[in-house]
Amino acid sequence: MATTYFSKRNLHFLLHEVFNADELTQYEYFSAHDRETFNLVIDSATYIADTLMYPYLKEVDQNQPELKNGQVTVHPKVKEFMHAMGEAGLIGAGFSFEQGGQQLPQMISSLVGFILMAANNGMMYSGLTSGAAHLITSFGSPALNEFYVPQMLAGKWQGTMALTEPQAGSSLSDVTTSATPQPDGTYKIKGQKVFISAGDHDAAENIIHLMLARIDGAPKGTKGISLFVVPKYRPDETGAFVDNDVQSTGVYHKMGQKGVPAMHLTMGSNDNTLGYLVGEPHQGLPYMFQMMNEARIGVGMTAAAIATAAYYAALQYAKERPQSRRLNEKNRLDAPQTPIINHPDVRRMLLFQKSVTEGSLSLLLEAARLYDISRVAEGEEKENAFLLLDLLMPVAKSFPSEMGVQSVSQSLQTFGGYGFTEDFPVEQLYRDIRITPIYEGTTGIQAQDLLGRKMTMKGGKAPQLLFAEISKVIADASLFDDLKPYGDQLAGELKRTQDVFVSLMPHAMKGDTERYLADATLFLELFGIVVVAWQWLKQAVVARQALLTKNPEGDDLAFYEGKIHTMKFYFHYEVPKTLGLAQRLKDPEVLTIVSEKELAL
Amino acid sequence: MATTYFSKRNLHFLLHEVFNADELTQYEYFSAHDRETFNLVIDSATYIADTLMYPYLKEVDQNQPELKNGQVTVHPKVKEFMHAMGEAGLIGAGFSFEQGGQQLPQMISSLVGFILMAANNGMMYSGLTSGAAHLITSFGSPALNEFYVPQMLAGKWQGTMALTEPQAGSSLSDVTTSATPQPDGTYKIKGQKVFISAGDHDAAENIIHLMLARIDGAPKGTKGISLFVVPKYRPDETGAFVDNDVQSTGVYHKMGQKGVPAMHLTMGSNDNTLGYLVGEPHQGLPYMFQMMNEARIGVGMTAAAIATAAYYAALQYAKERPQSRRLNEKNRLDAPQTPIINHPDVRRMLLFQKSVTEGSLSLLLEAARLYDISRVAEGEEKENAFLLLDLLMPVAKSFPSEMGVQSVSQSLQTFGGYGFTEDFPVEQLYRDIRITPIYEGTTGIQAQDLLGRKMTMKGGKAPQLLFAEISKVIADASLFDDLKPYGDQLAGELKRTQDVFVSLMPHAMKGDTERYLADATLFLELFGIVVVAWQWLKQAVVARQALLTKNPEGDDLAFYEGKIHTMKFYFHYEVPKTLGLAQRLKDPEVLTIVSEKELAL
Repeated sequence: MATTYFSKRNLHFLLHEVFNADELTQYEYFSAHDRETFNLVIDSATYIADTLMYPYLKEVDQNQPELKNGQVTVHPKVKEFMHAMGEAGLIGAGFSFEQGGQQLPQMISSLVGFILMAANNGMMYSGLTSGAAHLITSFGSPALNEFYVPQMLAGKWQGTMALTEPQAGSSLSDVTTSATPQPDGTYKIKGQKVFISAGDHDAAENIIHLMLARIDGAPKGTKGISLFVVPKYRPDETGAFVDNDVQSTGVYHKMGQKGVPAMHLTMGSNDNTLGYLVGEPHQGLPYMFQMMNEARIGVGMTAAAIATAAYYAALQYAKERPQSRRLNEKNRLDAPQTPIINHPDVRRMLLFQKSVTEGSLSLLLEAARLYDISRVAEGEEKENAFLLLDLLMPVAKSFPSEMGVQSVSQSLQTFGGYGFTEDFPVEQLYRDIRITPIYEGTTGIQAQDLLGRKMTMKGGKAPQLLFAEISKVIADASLFDDLKPYGDQLAGELKRTQDVFVSLMPHAMKGDTERYLADATLFLELFGIVVVAWQWLKQAVVARQALLTKNPEGDDLAFYEGKIHTMKFYFHYEVPKTLGLAQRLKDPEVLTIVSEKELAL
Repeated sequence: MATTYFSKRNLHFLLHEVFNADELTQYEYFSAHDRETFNLVIDSATYIADTLMYPYLKEVDQNQPELKNGQVTVHPKVKEFMHAMGEAGLIGAGFSFEQGGQQLPQMISSLVGFILMAANNGMMYSGLTSGAAHLITSFGSPALNEFYVPQMLAGKWQGTMALTEPQAGSSLSDVTTSATPQPDGTYKIKGQKVFISAGDHDAAENIIHLMLARIDGAPKGTKGISLFVVPKYRPDETGAFVDNDVQSTGVYHKMGQKGVPAMHLTMGSNDNTLGYLVGEPHQGLPYMFQMMNEARIGVGMTAAAIATAAYYAALQYAKERPQSRRLNEKNRLDAPQTPIINHPDVRRMLLFQKSVTEGSLSLLLEAARLYDISRVAEGEEKENAFLLLDLLMPVAKSFPSEMGVQSVSQSLQTFGGYGFTEDFPVEQLYRDIRITPIYEGTTGIQAQDLLGRKMTMKGGKAPQLLFAEISKVIADASLFDDLKPYGDQLAGELKRTQDVFVSLMPHAMKGDTERYLADATLFLELFGIVVVAWQWLKQAVVARQALLTKNPEGDDLAFYEGKIHTMKFYFHYEVPKTLGLAQRLKDPEVLTIVSEKELAL
C-alpha cells in the first residue's frame, strides 16, 4: 500500500503561495487566525487521517454496514474517529465561535475534508454532520440550535441530509413526504427517503435528519417544500429520549464508499414521527440551495481527494516497478528493466493524473476563497464574490468528479493487472469515486445549472467577472517569456468559449430551453477545461516567480519546475479537447431531442 | 434486472446484411455451412446464455472462487455450463472437422463469445479452453493433439494461457520460468506464473496450461522462449493420472470478473513438474503471436459484450423511469413526470452507448471476417486480408475496451444513484469491463504495435489497403444525398490521419523510437475513431439501401432509421474529437520523455 496519499507541500503551496489564505485574516471575522493556526488545523486533520482513517481503508470497504433487526452496525473505528473529530474541533471548524466553532475559513475546513477523504473516503461521516448542523445554525430557532448543534459538533450525534425519495431524485419538486401540523407546533412526518448517507448507524447516539417534506396543503412544486429536523430519538416532555419512529427499511449495497451506509428510511409507520420546522414554512428548498455551494465544494473535494490518493499510489508504483527497457534501448537484453515511470506512455498517464488532481484542488480552493469572501466582505466585493462562486460551482463540483473518475482509471492502468486486484488500493478508489458525478446533483444537473442559470443571471455579469479574473492571470503570465504563449493560448480559449455561448444564445432567447440545453453537459466540459487551464496558469506564474526570487534547491526546485511542467502538459494535452467540443456545440444538427417518430435505440 | 442483454436483430443485421457472412461458404473450407447453420449456432449459444449464464450473473460475482487447502472452488454452474458448451460443439466451433470441431468461421465463433460474455462474463471459461486447444492443434504433435484436444473441446478439461510472471507482464522477453530437458524428451518446468485465468478450479477434471518457459541455455530475450503443455495432472507410464506439481499458490481477489479465478501458480516446488514441448524449441513467442489476433478479437468481443449488456439495462431503465418534466414544460407541475429517455442529456448518453457498442461489434466482425479470409483464401486475397487484419487488431482490441469502459460508465450514469447499487447489474459490469484495456496487451502496448509496427510494415501497405477499403464505403455513401456529407467528412478524417502520421515519421526515420511512439496511445485513439466512423458509415449505407428497397415497417423501419441516426450521432459527437488529438500529435513540444533532470511528479 502507498504510504503517501496527498502532498502537504502542495497544500501549503496553494494555500500560502497561490491563494495567500492569510489575507482572509484581515477581515474581522477571521482575525483570530493566522498562517500558523491554519497550518495547525491541517496538521491536526492529518494526524487523525493518519492514525484513525488511512489504516482502515480496506477494512471499512470489506466490512460494509449491515442492517440487522432494524439496527445498522458500522466499523468500530467510526465512533473513535467522530469523537476525535469533535475533540479536535474539526466538525465545527467552519462554525462561528458563538456557535461553538473555530470560526475558520471554508478554505481551511474544506482542506480538512480533502485530507480526510484522501485517507479514507469510506469514513465520510463528519462532513455530513457539519452540513446538517450548519442548516440548523443558519435557519433554525435558538431552541433547535441549543438542543442539537453542540452534540453534533462534538461528534456524538450524526447529521444527515434527507432529500431524495424513490420518485424524487434529480426532481426535488416531486418530494411527497408529508408534514402535518400538530397543536404544539411540531409536525407529524410521513413518507420515505432513499440514499440517505449515514442515515442510521451505531457509532452515533442519535441521528439528526435535516429532511425535506411538504406541509399539508402546501403549494405544488418547489415552492411548497419545507425543512425539518427529524431525529431518530426525540426528547419527550420529561426530557427523556423516545424512539421517533424513523425506521431503517433497508441499506443499499453499493459498488463503493462501502463504509458509509446509504439508508432507505420510512417515517411514520406507526404515525409517531415528529419533525421540527426549521425557519419558515415552504422555504426548504431555498435553504438547501443556500447550503448547496458548501456541499458541492465538499463533493468536489472528495473527488479530488480520492483521485489524489490514487495518483500517489500509482506514482509510487511507477517509480518502483521495473518492466521492459526504454524504447531506444529495446535490444539491450542484458540491461536491467527500467522503472515504468521512464516510459513516455506511463509518464503521460501520471502527468494527466497530476494535472487533473492538482488542477481540481486549486479550483476548489478558489471556490472556497470566494465562499469566504462572500461571507465576510461587504458591498461590491461581497456581491462579486457571490456571483463568481455561483458561476464556478457547477464546474468545481463536476470537473473534479468527472475528470477524477478518468484520473483514477489511469492510476489503475498504471498498475496494469495488479491495479485490478485487491492487493493495491486503486481498485477500491476506482469504485469509490464513481459516485461523485452522481450525488449532490448529477453532472447533467450541474450542466443545466451552469448554462441555464449561471451564465445568464444578472445579465451575464458572472462570466464577465470570471473573464476579467482570467485576464489578470494572462497579463501576469505575459511578463515571463516561457509563460506568455500559454497566456495567449488561454486568451484564445476564452474567445472560443464566448463564441460557443453566443452561438447557443438564440435558442434561449426564443424560449426553446430544451434545445438551448441539449448539449449543456458538453458546454460544462468545455468550460471546465478552460477554468482549470486558468488555475494551472495561475500556479505556473507563482512557481515561476518563486524560481526567480527564492533560488530554490533540491526538492523545492523540482516542485516548482514540476508545476510549470504540468501546466504545460495540461495546455498541450488537455486544452486541445476544446476544439472538438466547440465544433459540436456550434453544430446546428439536432440529434437528441425526441420527435414524434420514435427511434429504435 | 434487465431481461435483454443483446440484440439478435443487430447481430443478424451485421452478419447477413452488412458483412454477408454466407459469402464465406463459397470457400471450400466453409462449404458445409449456410446462413441457416450460422443462425442455428447463434441460437444454440443464446440458449446456453439464457439458461446457464445470465441467471447467475450476480451469484457468480458475489461468490468469488476461494483457494482452500490448495483447491479452488468455483460456482457449481460452471461445470454444467462447460459440459453444455462441449455437447453443443461450441468450444470447438472454430476447429476443423478433422480436429473434432464444427469448421465454422471466426465470424460465427466470435459471435458465440459475444453472446456468452454479454450474458455473464464472469463465466469466461470456454474461450480460454478454445484458445489453448487451438495452440495445440496448430503447433503440437499428433500425440499431444490426440491426448488433450478431445477432452478440452468436450468441456471436461480446462485450457489456460500461462504467459505472465511476476517480473514479466508487458515485457514477455523477461520470462524466466525454466525448462530442463529430460532423457525421455519431456522437460522439467520450474517457475511462477501470475494472473492465470481459470488457472485452477474444481469444475474441470484437469487443467491444461499452455505455458511459456525458457529451455536451459536458450538465447536471451524473446528468441529463447518455448511453448509447453503443462497439465495439472499428467499421465504416468501406466496411463494413470498423477499430480504434476503445479501448485496453486494464491488466488487474486479482483475488482471484477470475479467468477473466474486468476491464479498464482508455482511449478516445480517438488522438482516434479513435467512439460511437453509444443512445436519447435524457442518458437514459443511466434506461436503465441500467431494466436494473438484470435485472442484479441476475443477480448474486444468481451468488452463489446459487457458494454452492450450495460447499454440494454440502461435503455430499459431510461424508458421506464419517470423523472422531472421536459425542459420546455418545466412549469407544468400537474403534468406527470416524463420517462428520462425524453431528456436530451439522457438520450445523448444512450446514443453514445449505442454508437460505441454497435460500432465496436461491427469492427470486430470486420476483423473476424478478415481472419477467416486470411485462413481460407489464397494468393493476394489472403495476403491482403492478413495485412488488413494485422493493422486493425490493435484498434479492434482497444476501441471496444477503452470506449467500452466509458460506455458502461454512461450506462451507470443513466441510472443515477441506483446505478451505484447492487440492485441493478451496471455496477458489476462497470467493474468487470475495467480489465479489458489491460489484458491481452494493455492499450499502451496496442498503441506501440499499431504505430511502431503495423503502420509501417511492408512499406506501409496495410494503411494503404485500409484507406482503399474506406474509400469504397465513402463512394457508396456518395450515392445518397443524406449520407454524402458524412462520406465527405470521413474523407477529411482520412486526410487528417495521414497528415498526423506524416508528421511523426521523421522521428522513426531518425531511429528515435521513444519520441516516435511517445504519444502512440493518442494516435491509436485517433485511428480508432476514424476506423469506427468507417464501420458506422458502412452500416448506414446498408440501412439506407434497406429503407429504399425493402419498404420496412414498424420495428424494422425504426431499426434501420436508428442505424442512420446513430451514425449521424457518431459523426457529430464523436468524430470531432480527432481535432484535439491531431493538434496534440502534431505538436512538437515534448513533455513525457525523461531527461536527466528529474521532475517532482
